[in-house]
Amino acid sequence: MPRIVTIAAAQLGPIQKAESRADVVGRMIALMDEAHARGANFIVYPELALTTFFPRWYHEDRAEADSWFEASMPNAATAPLFDKARALGMAMSFGYAELTPEGRHFNTSILVDRSGKIAGKYRKVHLPGHVDYDDTRSHQHLEKRYFEPGDLGWPVWNFEGGLVGMAICNDRRWPETYRVMGLQGVEMVVLGFNTPSVNSQRSDEGLEDRLFHHRLSVQAGAYQNSTFVVAVAKAGTEDGHHLTGGTLVVDPNGKILGELDHEHDGVLVVACDLDDTRFGKETIFDFARHRRVEHYGLITERTGAGEPLGR
Amino acid sequence: MPRIVTIAAAQLGPIQKAESRADVVGRMIALMDEAHARGANFIVYPELALTTFFPRWYHEDRAEADSWFEASMPNAATAPLFDKARALGMAMSFGYAELTPEGRHFNTSILVDRSGKIAGKYRKVHLPGHVDYDDTRSHQHLEKRYFEPGDLGWPVWNFEGGLVGMAICNDRRWPETYRVMGLQGVEMVVLGFNTPSVNSQRSDEGLEDRLFHHRLSVQAGAYQNSTFVVAVAKAGTEDGHHLTGGTLVVDPNGKILGELDHEHDGVLVVACDLDDTRFGKETIFDFARHRRVEHYGLITERTGAGEPLGR
Repeated sequence: MPRIVTIAAAQLGPIQKAESRADVVGRMIALMDEAHARGANFIVYPELALTTFFPRWYHEDRAEADSWFEASMPNAATAPLFDKARALGMAMSFGYAELTPEGRHFNTSILVDRSGKIAGKYRKVHLPGHVDYDDTRSHQHLEKRYFEPGDLGWPVWNFEGGLVGMAICNDRRWPETYRVMGLQGVEMVVLGFNTPSVNSQRSDEGLEDRLFHHRLSVQAGAYQNSTFVVAVAKAGTEDGHHLTGGTLVVDPNGKILGELDHEHDGVLVVACDLDDTRFGKETIFDFARHRRVEHYGLITERTGAGEPLGR
Repeated sequence: MPRIVTIAAAQLGPIQKAESRADVVGRMIALMDEAHARGANFIVYPELALTTFFPRWYHEDRAEADSWFEASMPNAATAPLFDKARALGMAMSFGYAELTPEGRHFNTSILVDRSGKIAGKYRKVHLPGHVDYDDTRSHQHLEKRYFEPGDLGWPVWNFEGGLVGMAICNDRRWPETYRVMGLQGVEMVVLGFNTPSVNSQRSDEGLEDRLFHHRLSVQAGAYQNSTFVVAVAKAGTEDGHHLTGGTLVVDPNGKILGELDHEHDGVLVVACDLDDTRFGKETIFDFARHRRVEHYGLITERTGAGEPLGR
C-alpha cells in the first residue's frame, strides 16, 4: 500500500518592508485554504515567511533588527494560522526569525502537526553572507550579522507517516545537509528559501545561473539520498530586490515532479508516495553496504580546505 | 595570468573480451596523438581502460579473473603508452585492475607525469554491485567479488601546475568523494567510468535516466567544491552490453563545457583555466567561513542509515 503524503509547496510572492505580520498571515491562510481544497495534508512555506528578507538591510545597532524576530511561537500574529491549520487538519512547516528567551537569534523553521503542536524545530546551520557592512557588494546579505549558526543539527522526525527533515535556503547547496538526514533514513526534506537573482559579488551571475545552481543542488541531494525534497521560494521583487522563485518538488530519483514558474503567492500540490524512496535506499544508495567511512575523516576533521595529501 | 591545463578526455569505444592489451594500447596511443595534435597536455582515459569491463562476468574461481589484472605498471603491454607519453611530453591518467605483490586486488587509476613517472595512485573506494552470482539481475556487476575497497583515500596532488585528484566511476555519485578532495583544495578531479545503460535491478531505468544521474552527480560535485571535473567513459556495446558513454568536462560553476555524443574512440579537448576555481572557493564555498563540522558527525559515525534523531 503506498504511503502518500500530498504536499503543498506554498510559494509566497514578495513581502515588502511595510507589510504587517497580520497581512502576511492572511496570505498564508489563503494559500492553506487552496492547498486543502486541492487535497493537500502538509503545507510548506518559505524561509522567513512572516517578513521581508530583512538581512538585506544593515542596522548598525543589531538590536534594531529585533523587530523582525518572533519572541514566541505561536504568538498573537501567527495564532490565526495555527488555528486554521488545526481546523483543517493540515500539517505545516514555515520559517521565521527566532529570538530566544536568552536573547539568542536563529533563522528557524518548524514542523507543526495536524493538532497544531510544534513537532520539530530546526535552526539554519549554513548561514551565508557576512557580518559587517560590505560596500564592495551590490547588495548586503547580513545573515551572519543577525543570526547565530543553528545549534540543533538536522534531526529527522516521524511525521505524517514518514521520516521528515528540514533545511533552510543556503543549506541546500551543502551535501552534508542531506547526508546527515539521509543517515537517519529521511524520506522527505522540506526547505524554504529567499535567493536574490543576482550574485552580490558577481553581477554577471544572474537569474538563469542562480536557478541552475538551485535545481542542481536540490536534485543531487534528493537522488544521492533517495529522498523527496520540497523547496519553497519567496519570489518576485521585494523591497526593490528580485528573488529567483523556483519552488519545486523533487522525487527520490532526482527528477523534478513540479515547479512553479510565476512570482506571486501560489501552491504547487504533489502527491508523494514515500515508498518510492525504497528502491534507491535498498540498492545503489544502500549506505550500509557501500559507504566507506574510514575514508571520510577529513569531512569532520577539517573545516576549511587545507594541504593536499598526495605524496 | 591564467593557469591553463588543456585536458583531453579520451573516451574509448567498446573493448571486446577477445581484444588484447596490445590492441587497446594501440588505440590509446592513437588518441594520444590526436590529443597532442589538438594542443592537449594532459590526457585522461576511462576506468579499466586496458580490458573489457570484466566484472560483468562471473568466475566461480576468483583466481581465474586474475588474467584481467596487471601485476606491475608499467608492464610489457603498457610500456609503449608510457614511451609515447614521454616522447610527446604528455601527462596522463588511466584506470586498470591492479594485482599487488601481496595478492591484493584493486580497481586502480594512476597519474603519470610528463616524464613518464607515476606521480599518484588511487584505488576505487565505492565499489558497486555484489559478491556472489545474483540471478535476480538482468546482468552481473561483480566489483565487490573481484576487488577490495580502496585503501588510499582520495589524495590530491600537485600536478601539471594545479591540484589534481582522482575518482573512479561509482565514486562520482557520492558527495563524500568530491568533498574529501575539496578539503584539500582540489582544482581538477579526473575520473573514468563504465556504466551499463540499464539498471540491472530495474529494467525501466534506461539510458536517459542513467545519463541524467551521471551528469547530475558530476555537475553537483564540481559546483559544490568549485572544481573542474573530467569524466571519461567507455562507450558502446561491449560483449553484448551497452554502456552509456557521456564523456564530459564540467567547470567549477557546474556547467558542462563539452560532452561527446558518440560511442567510439574519441577525444574531447578543453582548455581549463584552473584560476576559474577561485571565485567559488573564496565566496559561497569558502569552507573555512561557512562549514559547520560540529553538525556533520553522523557522516563518519554511521555507515548505514540508523534511527532518526528527532525528539
